[in-house]
Amino acid sequence: MIGPEIERLIQLLAKLPGLGPRSARRAALHLMKRRDGLMVPLSDAMATAAEAIRTCSVCGNLDTRDPCTVCADATRDRSILCVVEDAGDLWALERTRAYRGLYHVLGGTLSALNGVRPEDLSIGPLAERARDPAVREVILALPATVDGQTTAHVVTDRLAGADVTVSRLAHGVPVGGELDYLDDGTLTAALKARRPY
Amino acid sequence: MIGPEIERLIQLLAKLPGLGPRSARRAALHLMKRRDGLMVPLSDAMATAAEAIRTCSVCGNLDTRDPCTVCADATRDRSILCVVEDAGDLWALERTRAYRGLYHVLGGTLSALNGVRPEDLSIGPLAERARDPAVREVILALPATVDGQTTAHVVTDRLAGADVTVSRLAHGVPVGGELDYLDDGTLTAALKARRPY
Repeated sequence: MIGPEIERLIQLLAKLPGLGPRSARRAALHLMKRRDGLMVPLSDAMATAAEAIRTCSVCGNLDTRDPCTVCADATRDRSILCVVEDAGDLWALERTRAYRGLYHVLGGTLSALNGVRPEDLSIGPLAERARDPAVREVILALPATVDGQTTAHVVTDRLAGADVTVSRLAHGVPVGGELDYLDDGTLTAALKARRPY
Repeated sequence: MIGPEIERLIQLLAKLPGLGPRSARRAALHLMKRRDGLMVPLSDAMATAAEAIRTCSVCGNLDTRDPCTVCADATRDRSILCVVEDAGDLWALERTRAYRGLYHVLGGTLSALNGVRPEDLSIGPLAERARDPAVREVILALPATVDGQTTAHVVTDRLAGADVTVSRLAHGVPVGGELDYLDDGTLTAALKARRPY
């Protein structure tokens, strides 16, 4: 009893992360009630973004310019590269305003299960960039999962020839976190890496 | 550090029900990684739907034709009108395939808090339709909330002149539901409306 145009809209909305079939229907209804206020602007914003977005040829970030805003920013510290899994993690680090170096987006993590091999990731270009004498440090900001840590290991191996310090993010108690709710691994890591008060 | 096109996309996605600022960012990233596979088709589907969808001039349903598919279907029972809050509730009832009559979409429920008055809802046109001698019954399928029940009361008042039976959905234990998790009101209603086994 729903027209094919609406069915198709619901099906496509259901492919967004965080939306299932039921919430996609709710989202479609919400859009249908706000055709001029939301549906048309959102459609236009998607078309515009799809047209404008490109992958940065230097670091692999997604942006509306190439090189991306970060790579093109002359004030950034070009001696540090921060290696991230994808552009979302890059955005998360940018939001902290705590990092002023450059990035390198791997495009995923190694995964035997999902068939992601080292040659599927941007590891070669990273090794290339790390050979630049201006680069002194490579920070591995990869997920603290098994796949993330395997990836970190492989990346470190590939950086062996380059004259760079390889570091990783600290493990520990999340700021604002209760000890009671933490897993044993994190608590052990936080204890081992304790710092003078 | 994100281009204005991406910022705008995130802002608009965050207006969808079920997506907050954080999940809107994740959805935007998901779309940006699948530009040809999802972002462009979804943009097109929204534009097509926004163009095609109209409000049914008979019942208030949202569909790609007017009168809507339900109102235009000659096999539906024209002696019963089922009154719903919005098109989403109509879809939910249609999915059950348990109802073969027509609908009337009120467009909301009365709400002192949100300033929704009787004249903001499609109550007049409902009274008009109910005066048709072919209509024998009006089923109030309104939410079992305070606002929904106030609306049901006002609608019933407005139907007083018409020669129709007014009924409402049964309250009771949801099928598959555990008694333990039910609120007292529902359990009381289910007990009072008990049926011979």
